[in-house]
Amino acid sequence: MGHTDFGEFHCSIARTVDVVGERWTPMILRDVVLGVTRFDDIQRDLGVARNVLAARLEALVQDGILERKAYQENPVRHDYVLTQKGRELATALLALMAWGDRWADGGDGPPVQLVHEACGEHTDPALTCSCCGEPLALDELTAEAGPGGRIGRGTEVVGRRLAEAPHRILR
Amino acid sequence: MGHTDFGEFHCSIARTVDVVGERWTPMILRDVVLGVTRFDDIQRDLGVARNVLAARLEALVQDGILERKAYQENPVRHDYVLTQKGRELATALLALMAWGDRWADGGDGPPVQLVHEACGEHTDPALTCSCCGEPLALDELTAEAGPGGRIGRGTEVVGRRLAEAPHRILR
Repeated sequence: MGHTDFGEFHCSIARTVDVVGERWTPMILRDVVLGVTRFDDIQRDLGVARNVLAARLEALVQDGILERKAYQENPVRHDYVLTQKGRELATALLALMAWGDRWADGGDGPPVQLVHEACGEHTDPALTCSCCGEPLALDELTAEAGPGGRIGRGTEVVGRRLAEAPHRILR
Repeated sequence: MGHTDFGEFHCSIARTVDVVGERWTPMILRDVVLGVTRFDDIQRDLGVARNVLAARLEALVQDGILERKAYQENPVRHDYVLTQKGRELATALLALMAWGDRWADGGDGPPVQLVHEACGEHTDPALTCSCCGEPLALDELTAEAGPGGRIGRGTEVVGRRLAEAPHRILR
């Protein structure tokens, strides 16, 4: 594809984009989450070219996000199902969905609403701190270089600055 | 670009991908969050072509995610800063970062660690229910058609199924 290899960047957003950054890929994962798990159904749902869909599904299987489970032999046909790695990625996509509901609903309200069975209410997925449980706001965060931090392509400036001092975000 | 217009899909993930789905865009937002806010610095950090960076920044300004603030006149030079809409989008990207830290750290540990100033601890952004505050797991969610749901391109199958019955995810 001639793409820069984001997987080589020492950045967890870049590495995630490397897995999920082709435009159709989040749509495919959404379909699988919503129970549309077969090639022809996904193709019809999205109106995506069959060769593009086949390539994206193969990449997701190679990356360990989806697995094929045969539901029919001769000819063999598969359901695509999420691995644990894929389940966690799909959960992260709920944060993007919540943003779209808030900022890009076209005035019609959310296309899909989620009910959290544990509490029985409509839920709006929110990012919170794993330690204290409070909602995360960017301006209450400080970024520090972690053990995997490096100075290099994709982190040439950021890596150098964080190696010198933590960055108090938006302050 | 010849892209399908995801902004026309009745899906909040599609609409978010429409804003942030070009590969360099999440990287640019990461840089702005981490204090790398000027064209030349972002260009050097990412090693991205100048024309591509200029186009991505212009799109982010048009979409109301970033604003230009002049820090110098004659010639005029800008810092790119997040709007409120952009802050919330950048916060959602923390969910992708957390996934990359967990599943794609290359064995080196996280490149960047976040400290939550409110509690003073390293935080691992987690998606939780806006109602009960518990962590969200896909298999505890049910998806229902919302007021903005439609049957059409991008939701041809999903829209129809959700209009018929809610979908109990992964069950």
